[in-house]
Amino acid sequence: MTTYIFGHKNPDTDSICSAIAYADFKAKNSEKDVVAARIGNINNETKFVLEKFKTAAPVVLKDGAGKKMILVDHNQEAQSIDLRDKGEVIEVLDHHNINFASACTIPFLTEPVGATCTIIANKYFDTKTQLDEKIAGLLFSAIISDTVIFKSPITTEKDKTTAQKLAKLLGIKDIESFGIEMFKAKSVWGKMTAEDILEMDRKEYDMSGSKVSITQVETVDYKDLVPRKKELLAELSRIKEIRGLDLSVLLITDIIKEGCLLLAVGDTKKIEAAYKKKLNAGEVWLNGVLSRKKQVVPVLEEVF
Amino acid sequence: MTTYIFGHKNPDTDSICSAIAYADFKAKNSEKDVVAARIGNINNETKFVLEKFKTAAPVVLKDGAGKKMILVDHNQEAQSIDLRDKGEVIEVLDHHNINFASACTIPFLTEPVGATCTIIANKYFDTKTQLDEKIAGLLFSAIISDTVIFKSPITTEKDKTTAQKLAKLLGIKDIESFGIEMFKAKSVWGKMTAEDILEMDRKEYDMSGSKVSITQVETVDYKDLVPRKKELLAELSRIKEIRGLDLSVLLITDIIKEGCLLLAVGDTKKIEAAYKKKLNAGEVWLNGVLSRKKQVVPVLEEVF
Repeated sequence: MTTYIFGHKNPDTDSICSAIAYADFKAKNSEKDVVAARIGNINNETKFVLEKFKTAAPVVLKDGAGKKMILVDHNQEAQSIDLRDKGEVIEVLDHHNINFASACTIPFLTEPVGATCTIIANKYFDTKTQLDEKIAGLLFSAIISDTVIFKSPITTEKDKTTAQKLAKLLGIKDIESFGIEMFKAKSVWGKMTAEDILEMDRKEYDMSGSKVSITQVETVDYKDLVPRKKELLAELSRIKEIRGLDLSVLLITDIIKEGCLLLAVGDTKKIEAAYKKKLNAGEVWLNGVLSRKKQVVPVLEEVF
Repeated sequence: MTTYIFGHKNPDTDSICSAIAYADFKAKNSEKDVVAARIGNINNETKFVLEKFKTAAPVVLKDGAGKKMILVDHNQEAQSIDLRDKGEVIEVLDHHNINFASACTIPFLTEPVGATCTIIANKYFDTKTQLDEKIAGLLFSAIISDTVIFKSPITTEKDKTTAQKLAKLLGIKDIESFGIEMFKAKSVWGKMTAEDILEMDRKEYDMSGSKVSITQVETVDYKDLVPRKKELLAELSRIKEIRGLDLSVLLITDIIKEGCLLLAVGDTKKIEAAYKKKLNAGEVWLNGVLSRKKQVVPVLEEVF
């Protein structure tokens, strides 16, 4: 029976590359019939990475019913495949907070590192599994992406040494330039509708009974998106209505200025309480805030 | 600030030895102020092991309020320290099914092996951390205990090779004899009240809203406890009342005959449905059933 490996909904580069790399790792360690999958569209940044390292996108998996599944880069049901409880999760590999239950003991590993691909790269190193250039390229790109070129506070020493080791393998000398080129590929806003932008990397959270949606997009200049603010706020409202949210948030992260422009619709008082800053016409600039996981989700959870 | 490492309530040998060994592992890897603890009494088997390898019992920790904690050999709240949510769990190392939530990412590892000490022993091996004879003895004993001398179906190849490696280090040639001596030490029923026996290794489960308590005791001859059946059933009833249970179970595992005598009070129809066998005056013999985790809990959960 086929085992499917996949990351979270609205997959980012770490989710896609983790799935491809971990399926390769399993195959190289004689675990047969393991297939990389995804449960959402590929974003422009990931497209750039897959093209650069000549790798096909994983297959799309519609739902989890009757499937054997390995989760990478997520573990919570809200961020996972539909009908997951109608299938069997046989393993988890992740770097997020935990909200998970299983009927029996399974291999389950979370580590507080910047990218799931950091964990996977070290599995190759530790077990001396052969690491092809393609896979090394995907792992490297995902670490650079998730850690925002090591600028995000979620970055650990392990992420840096792992990415540097991979860069050496790949002959990449200027990690910063590679990262900026990759983030530029992501920031092709002109071709995207407001809905495309909001759905690029949107996650929903249950915060003490309140439903909160937070999209994060990384830019090399947040001002590129400012002219589209009205349109983005309208889309935030639309999502709020159709998803029954209490708060609908967009973080426009600027990896050069190292901060984010936050747009929000709904119970925005919670954001003002969390950051002790007033929103002005639905927006506020948060200096130094680069990580949704570390600097936004727990801060809002505290307030809710 | 001190970090406390401890196993589950009603600690067994794996819980106690995991706490002691993992605290030693942390200390040897320059993590300071880490203390082995326990949240219940030491049973006779563990006493035998600690005396054999000249090790003091871990300190007793009353509650988790304001504490930094590492959980070994358990992860679920119901089996953990009181007021755990008033402290901070910073790491988990376990071999049970998962029911856990965390606010941030922590190192969390479960592996489907027979003992938590198998995971810890391999941490010593993999990182080439110095392994003293005392600690090797504790790790070895815990693996032999939890796997019932490799007879339990939870036993994996990894448990066997790990225990054999440790036995070699310790100069133990006859693993079976060591195990039987250890289990005999546990089975000093004469000195124990029915309450002592029931509380030796009792765990509570929430099964689809029903509260189920399952105690497991290992014996070298289950018949030693048969004369005390009336007393044990009365104690099962008493626990049922005071804990508000739907079903109160005692598994008297016989490691020689490789099966268990199950005594139960409450909704015993569920047991009859699960094993397709009638209970006779509150008891039923289950051939080949040695593992609460693998052969009892999931089977009952299915029925509830």
